[in-house]
Amino acid sequence: MTAVDFTSFVDRLASASGDTILPFFRTSLTVDNKKTGGFDPVTAADRAAEDAMRTLIRKNFPAHGILGEEYGSEHADAEYVWVLDPIDGTKSFISGMVAWGTLIGLMRFGEPVFGMMHQPFVRERFSGDGGAAGYRGPAGDRALHVRPCASLKDAVLFTTSPLLMQPADRAIFQRVENAVKLSRYGGDCYAYCMLAAGHIDLVIETEINPHDIVPLIPIIAGAGGIVTTWENGPAQGGGRIIAAGDKRVHAAALEILQA
Amino acid sequence: MTAVDFTSFVDRLASASGDTILPFFRTSLTVDNKKTGGFDPVTAADRAAEDAMRTLIRKNFPAHGILGEEYGSEHADAEYVWVLDPIDGTKSFISGMVAWGTLIGLMRFGEPVFGMMHQPFVRERFSGDGGAAGYRGPAGDRALHVRPCASLKDAVLFTTSPLLMQPADRAIFQRVENAVKLSRYGGDCYAYCMLAAGHIDLVIETEINPHDIVPLIPIIAGAGGIVTTWENGPAQGGGRIIAAGDKRVHAAALEILQA
Repeated sequence: MTAVDFTSFVDRLASASGDTILPFFRTSLTVDNKKTGGFDPVTAADRAAEDAMRTLIRKNFPAHGILGEEYGSEHADAEYVWVLDPIDGTKSFISGMVAWGTLIGLMRFGEPVFGMMHQPFVRERFSGDGGAAGYRGPAGDRALHVRPCASLKDAVLFTTSPLLMQPADRAIFQRVENAVKLSRYGGDCYAYCMLAAGHIDLVIETEINPHDIVPLIPIIAGAGGIVTTWENGPAQGGGRIIAAGDKRVHAAALEILQA
Repeated sequence: MTAVDFTSFVDRLASASGDTILPFFRTSLTVDNKKTGGFDPVTAADRAAEDAMRTLIRKNFPAHGILGEEYGSEHADAEYVWVLDPIDGTKSFISGMVAWGTLIGLMRFGEPVFGMMHQPFVRERFSGDGGAAGYRGPAGDRALHVRPCASLKDAVLFTTSPLLMQPADRAIFQRVENAVKLSRYGGDCYAYCMLAAGHIDLVIETEINPHDIVPLIPIIAGAGGIVTTWENGPAQGGGRIIAAGDKRVHAAALEILQA
């Protein structure tokens, strides 16, 4: 729980970033990228959205810190620090696929206390504060809860792509992959939200940056799930990450990852 | 081009199937699947939607044939035969991801003449008649056109999952994968539509059924793309399929696939 309720302010940040990003998605800007050469629409959208959010934060909470994907950090030692990733899933974005989202997180004294994933094209928002998590969008407004899953052999696993892993990590990952019911690729931030919503059981990734995961931690925890590093440490520093809806599946997967 | 304009009727089929499917997507029905045991929400949604579309077709065009994923074929030798796949991308569907769609195709004298991909949750429709293709949805109404791509090294490639391929096919596929700029997994019918929309350049898959591809052929062709088997034959029989936005990339990939 946050000491102050930032819920409505996070909604303003999400709306501002969504309005900024959408003109760049699936437009001729994107299609023409190859012809015009130097212009990179996803970087342009990323920067414009982070800029819009930073402006709002500075204006409303000038003492707060900001850690963003595009523009680095400012006031990183403040009590409250915002963690921003305007377009998580840039490869989906440039391919026209909708499995990307805007991640907005808030840390207090170094701990993630609030997070949101916003998909402005589908018009859905997943949010959480570590104690509870909720959804608003075309599937209606509702609370998010993980689902029970007793063992790996019943689990649906997601990873964005095994091609993103170092070969040694990929070999370890494949041992978990061989133990689950279904392994699927793609998803980025969506996979973690589907875990919070109780549709899948496990997400395992590597090469994760803090801004990729900090905003998702309060959503996963708020829905009753668990997210750590492969070493069972705090996830907020990024690295090799495992999220599970059920502690039993988390423990079973960790056993393989650490073997 | 079809001899008769079935455009508005296809819209009715899409709306009827969408209304039938949505109550099963991301609902407690799906979440509770594991607890209740026998009930399979995606199969229930698939069947109910195909049933709704078959009823409309029989009522409006009793002489037409139907080839559906769930209920097989009827009047398969008719002049017009509808090809239906209510939920293409069932693994995305059960995972709560939105990369699935309803495929509705129409063949005349054995040739695909009209096709639609409808995503009722995102509320977007991609359609084509082999001569032109169009989009309606949150990205606005517009014509679909493939983008130019001179060579494999500039190409963005999609496949739903290499895990779906036979080992021998996977090894061949990986040779193409090693030659492209970016290889991405996931997508099902969405990948072909993103190719038609000019966001990606290449889709290569195996184990494709006629109902997976027939509805997409007039969209790809209408947008200026090309879709064949790995043997460069007609795609409507399914099997090992390659779709490309640019003939040069198609030729270059075929050369590797046939080597």
